[in-house]
Amino acid sequence: MTRERVYLYDTTLRDGAQTTGVDFSLEDKRAIAGLLDRIGVDYVEGGYPGANPLDTAFFSEKRTTGARFAAFGMTKRPGRSVSNDPGVAALLEAKADAICFVTKSWDYHVRVALETTLEENLAGIRDSVRAARESGREVIVDCEHFFDGYKANPDYALSCARTAYESGARWVVLCDTNGGTLPHEVSAIVAEVAKTVPGERLGIHAHDDCGCAVANSLAAVEAGARHIQGTLNGLGERCGNANLVTLIGTLKLKDGYASRFDLGVSDDALSQLTHVSRQVDEILNRQPNRHAPFVGASAFATKAGIHASAVLKDPRTYEHVEPESVGNARKVLVSDQGGQSNILAELKRLGFTFEKGDGRVARILDEVKRKEAEGFAFEGADASFYVLVKRMLGEVPAFFQVERFSVNVERRFNALGEMVTASEAIVKVRVGDEVLISAAEGNGPVNALDVALRKDLGKYQDLIQDLELTDYKVRIYQGGSDAVTRVLIEFSDSAGDSWTTIGVSANIIDASFQALTDSITYKLLKSGAGL
Amino acid sequence: MTRERVYLYDTTLRDGAQTTGVDFSLEDKRAIAGLLDRIGVDYVEGGYPGANPLDTAFFSEKRTTGARFAAFGMTKRPGRSVSNDPGVAALLEAKADAICFVTKSWDYHVRVALETTLEENLAGIRDSVRAARESGREVIVDCEHFFDGYKANPDYALSCARTAYESGARWVVLCDTNGGTLPHEVSAIVAEVAKTVPGERLGIHAHDDCGCAVANSLAAVEAGARHIQGTLNGLGERCGNANLVTLIGTLKLKDGYASRFDLGVSDDALSQLTHVSRQVDEILNRQPNRHAPFVGASAFATKAGIHASAVLKDPRTYEHVEPESVGNARKVLVSDQGGQSNILAELKRLGFTFEKGDGRVARILDEVKRKEAEGFAFEGADASFYVLVKRMLGEVPAFFQVERFSVNVERRFNALGEMVTASEAIVKVRVGDEVLISAAEGNGPVNALDVALRKDLGKYQDLIQDLELTDYKVRIYQGGSDAVTRVLIEFSDSAGDSWTTIGVSANIIDASFQALTDSITYKLLKSGAGL
Repeated sequence: MTRERVYLYDTTLRDGAQTTGVDFSLEDKRAIAGLLDRIGVDYVEGGYPGANPLDTAFFSEKRTTGARFAAFGMTKRPGRSVSNDPGVAALLEAKADAICFVTKSWDYHVRVALETTLEENLAGIRDSVRAARESGREVIVDCEHFFDGYKANPDYALSCARTAYESGARWVVLCDTNGGTLPHEVSAIVAEVAKTVPGERLGIHAHDDCGCAVANSLAAVEAGARHIQGTLNGLGERCGNANLVTLIGTLKLKDGYASRFDLGVSDDALSQLTHVSRQVDEILNRQPNRHAPFVGASAFATKAGIHASAVLKDPRTYEHVEPESVGNARKVLVSDQGGQSNILAELKRLGFTFEKGDGRVARILDEVKRKEAEGFAFEGADASFYVLVKRMLGEVPAFFQVERFSVNVERRFNALGEMVTASEAIVKVRVGDEVLISAAEGNGPVNALDVALRKDLGKYQDLIQDLELTDYKVRIYQGGSDAVTRVLIEFSDSAGDSWTTIGVSANIIDASFQALTDSITYKLLKSGAGL
Repeated sequence: MTRERVYLYDTTLRDGAQTTGVDFSLEDKRAIAGLLDRIGVDYVEGGYPGANPLDTAFFSEKRTTGARFAAFGMTKRPGRSVSNDPGVAALLEAKADAICFVTKSWDYHVRVALETTLEENLAGIRDSVRAARESGREVIVDCEHFFDGYKANPDYALSCARTAYESGARWVVLCDTNGGTLPHEVSAIVAEVAKTVPGERLGIHAHDDCGCAVANSLAAVEAGARHIQGTLNGLGERCGNANLVTLIGTLKLKDGYASRFDLGVSDDALSQLTHVSRQVDEILNRQPNRHAPFVGASAFATKAGIHASAVLKDPRTYEHVEPESVGNARKVLVSDQGGQSNILAELKRLGFTFEKGDGRVARILDEVKRKEAEGFAFEGADASFYVLVKRMLGEVPAFFQVERFSVNVERRFNALGEMVTASEAIVKVRVGDEVLISAAEGNGPVNALDVALRKDLGKYQDLIQDLELTDYKVRIYQGGSDAVTRVLIEFSDSAGDSWTTIGVSANIIDASFQALTDSITYKLLKSGAGL
């Protein structure tokens, strides 16, 4: 059976820029454009040249190798000629293969927001599309608020779509701009429009204000559309755009679609999906959504004891797709809900071998539950779990003992009359028979403590010389009536390994201290020290 | 037109307990059951009595007033009689109005996971449902993996559903347990099943592994089902269950549904939706999803200058529903993408009046952009934005000047040979002509600094006596190449007001100090001090 081609149009760098708290730097845009090329989307909408200096600069050259590079902007303003419209001029100047014009398609908007006539709006579409075609660009027309426009005045909305199509647009995209359209409505309306603009020229641009952006995109494709606009990780204003990561996973892997449609995304690119999704969050310093379909840290994670045994027996019993196909992994979570199957699987993953029924496993489980009641969470802190198990097995040598530390932060006027803040730490540590005292400054109290702690560890100093603190996360956790601070610290070493430890205390310095010492202990164990 | 009743079945306290990082205490469950009663759901599934001591204890009494209280468990195990099955016994003992049995409906699971015959499984359904009916309970039967089971062996899956129905179940719920079913498949399969089990007895239980849980629930209702299972905020294992908050908003407010279906949720209860959603996150100490449909902090937030002017002119042009109907609010975000319309709206909201074109507005906008480049984000920190504006208008009196502070955290052996951590702070502050030095201990460095700072503020002490630090959030923010710490602090006073301030620095104590002093300044301004 011949599959039909469905085209992916990514607007992370334009519509995604509207996300609360997101601001792309030029470097961010370059990096994300590269990731999109790697996935194999068909179009990358790089931004809105002329709207701000950064976007204009981004279009000073084509930024993609595989994907078509698209520039976004408005159709010509009423009362001007297309050659006199600065917005259109900016689009024509941009080093873009494609131009995407957004146009009003709801009569109410034309009259109230644009303050012009319905005819003038159509002329604007016509002239803009023609100008862009004459410059040799592929043209996409985003019909803004199309579904609300169609419900209010179907003839007018349709005339906007038809005008775009007849003027030479490659794609006429129906936009659910306020995200309020429901899947059954999208199905019906797209099917109607497809009688005027053929499906192979129709696209869908959905928003998630009713939690249906992905479903609306699928419904549009079912009704004949062959172009989907969305963003990585569902970025976008308000509730976000349709999540292209979810759509790629669904269209590539689900029987109901994979046999009918060709996304132009290779299986190899698909296996990069999780990595690309996480890189985007890294670049934007956003907390990844661990519950994201396909790529979330928890997307294939099992907690409950009963499920865990079944999953390990035969993953197909519980998993709808193979995690590896999207570059993700199955997880059996260490948690106080887990039974012994869970713990055994986790221990095995970390390299411990226990027979089922080994009494130590039950004791480890109890200790985990005890610590979790205090606020510890080992799910994201493998190295702390590893150290805990080693301790319970009596396999941690007495590497070092911190007898005392003192951390000070002082803000005062310096000799020049400027207000400065200084952070210092003193650490007194016993290593074997030696007692070592080290002092250090830092850019903050935790940094100062970390530097002092790792300044002189006696005979073990060589082994920890190459450690680098690469991430530091703080969360205030409400265990019971008291809030405690949960600190997660990630370290890397010169071998390229990295690991995360956790510390919990009402005192953030204390919590950091626990995580730091766990990390050092982990490294020493890893190095085989003390054996 | 008579509307048909659609019933809401909440499983936050049972399926939601599978969420990574979530562990309900008894008090958590009580509180959430109360919130669910407030919203007006029809059923609250309180947990799995017999599976763990906490759930068994939770069912020692009925925990809801309006909603039916449901207990979850498995149908009787093969090879036992129903009266000899401890799982069923625990369900019958529970103080529940309704019992929800989960049963296998995929022949593969019956053979491989349960290791029994297809007939024995049906007998298990029959006997369990009858036993529960005889005890006077309403019975719900969750057909696990129904859609995969139907695709593999439609006759068997249907026989499970039919057996449940014929044995007296009030509801037969078709579960998409691994979340891999697509909306068009749900539509088709539910429509088929409705020929055997009438729609008024059919329910849907969807998971979000393809981002379609809400859409699948709606598709099932379109196909005749009248019972929806889900969780608040889409809690649940892996990618979560169907989000009941989104479904309530959609079914109550969208034309396509509000006219056809009656949820049994009053408009007044609907206006509590945002509050309930946030309370659940509070209780579980989870970061709220600001992009959540209807209730997210950003659900009605506009960033871009062009949209902002249009939205403020006529909200219907851009909003698909009224934010107030769900207890949410429109936001025009202060951001470096915003133009002057944004800032003017924000200033107006905080009580400042400026004429359009007032030069000070442009200067305020510049200062906001400058600080945002440093890592500040005023979106969640109104009080800091207020103080910033007041400063730029020269309207902040010289209340107090901190000339020096010193914060110390020390961990050492005490006289009893125990390791203890002590935190102390000294603050030297000038208030008018007085110089005051205060010292304080705390459970951590920030607490110590806060107590010392507010211990003696001279003539202003009375005005800050009633302040209470109610929330403290830390985020490591990657501004450029350097990471900085962003601290958000919330204070409340005896008048019941609360406000949030922000501080940014590489040094967490410094960042906290900025937020603390901003907060005190805000309170003094609010009190009219110094005028």
